[in-house]
Amino acid sequence: MDSDYIVGRNPVIEALKSEREVEKILVAKGELKGSINKILGIAKDKSIPVQYVDKNRLDTISEGGLPHQGVAALVTPFKYSTIEDILDIAKKTDEDPFIVILDEIEDPHNLGSIIRTAECAGVHGIIIPKRRSASVTMTVVKASAGAVEHMHIAKVNNITNTILELKDNGLWIYGADMDAEEYYFERDFSGPKALVIGSEGKGISRLVKENCDFLVKIPMLGDISSLNASNAASILIYEAVRERYGKK
Amino acid sequence: MDSDYIVGRNPVIEALKSEREVEKILVAKGELKGSINKILGIAKDKSIPVQYVDKNRLDTISEGGLPHQGVAALVTPFKYSTIEDILDIAKKTDEDPFIVILDEIEDPHNLGSIIRTAECAGVHGIIIPKRRSASVTMTVVKASAGAVEHMHIAKVNNITNTILELKDNGLWIYGADMDAEEYYFERDFSGPKALVIGSEGKGISRLVKENCDFLVKIPMLGDISSLNASNAASILIYEAVRERYGKK
Repeated sequence: MDSDYIVGRNPVIEALKSEREVEKILVAKGELKGSINKILGIAKDKSIPVQYVDKNRLDTISEGGLPHQGVAALVTPFKYSTIEDILDIAKKTDEDPFIVILDEIEDPHNLGSIIRTAECAGVHGIIIPKRRSASVTMTVVKASAGAVEHMHIAKVNNITNTILELKDNGLWIYGADMDAEEYYFERDFSGPKALVIGSEGKGISRLVKENCDFLVKIPMLGDISSLNASNAASILIYEAVRERYGKK
Repeated sequence: MDSDYIVGRNPVIEALKSEREVEKILVAKGELKGSINKILGIAKDKSIPVQYVDKNRLDTISEGGLPHQGVAALVTPFKYSTIEDILDIAKKTDEDPFIVILDEIEDPHNLGSIIRTAECAGVHGIIIPKRRSASVTMTVVKASAGAVEHMHIAKVNNITNTILELKDNGLWIYGADMDAEEYYFERDFSGPKALVIGSEGKGISRLVKENCDFLVKIPMLGDISSLNASNAASILIYEAVRERYGKK
């Protein structure tokens, strides 16, 4: 069977708490401090085998020197959702759908970090394109602090078609764009919505931009002309959260 | 004379636009595309020597495999500011002082990313402790996209004493704390202020927390219990920006 490794304490803990199947846990010999004990406890409860290995083994498993914090898990591959899954979830929670669309975010750290913020903000799902985008790799799982385990992520062929489908389902589409005329805090984000965040270098692509209902910008008051994509996403995602609390 | 390397296109461009002295620029042979030409143009205008080197040379200069994008610069070391410098800058701009205090942010990517957001938000200065904090290294410069060149950063011995000094200067101190009773959007951030962000693992230290005038929290609506420190900082920093625009 196909399996993936994930590394790091939070990612392993969140995988154990989620529906993802954990086949085996690898712990570095001598690493029995702090949250490793929590991991061992859950593994015991769930009868998941634990293997004690040399730290080198984990270093080899880790992608590009990712800090593994003495623990890895062999898990079934990440299961992507569909747009329908995501809309269904919103329906079940009786909340207005709140979706984040990431238009070609290529940096896995940014992708992971946005997934984490979205999960904390109660976003129902994230949509990424199949091409020219980071996927849910070990690095993304780590950067999300394990939030991927609790987030529905759909991979689509074409973001523009997806936007049209979401519009058919009654969602309003908000795009983040440096050249927008309105600031994000001037626009009402209430109701069913999808928020589109573009790639760090290029922003939202032209065709996607043309299909947004509203474009909003973040004020830039210094010498640097743009925010990191995950920070921009966080500011806009939480703008929608404040409205859930009746604050505008 | 003491010198440091910085790497990456944005960091080198911003250093060239700032008051930092650039002694020499290293460009990888064959890398003459895109913004490298902009760098060569500014270097020519400023009579800064350019040296063409093998890509390997830049790989060696880069800290921990940091992507150098074919360019590095030898610069004078980053010049830290004092609290007085930061308060003076606010006074000169005729704005209420807006300072960000980072209580033991150890991850250089987070530090760089917060500096970038702060610069974009018109923050007058950032205060970090001398111990248990990332400093302005090559990685921080890169993660800030060069924003460090336009930001006043002070290193202090003791954050609590600094808070008392800022209070004496009429600033209100807001701390981000998961256990706060108020949400950040329930609190008025107008007026002279410092915003305290704690370390990712531990949050703000007890003594610092006790000296804050107000503690605010960010709603956590999912399974993950905390945001990445730079994303939390971005949300709170921009909360203060929206108030500059008269929005609450």
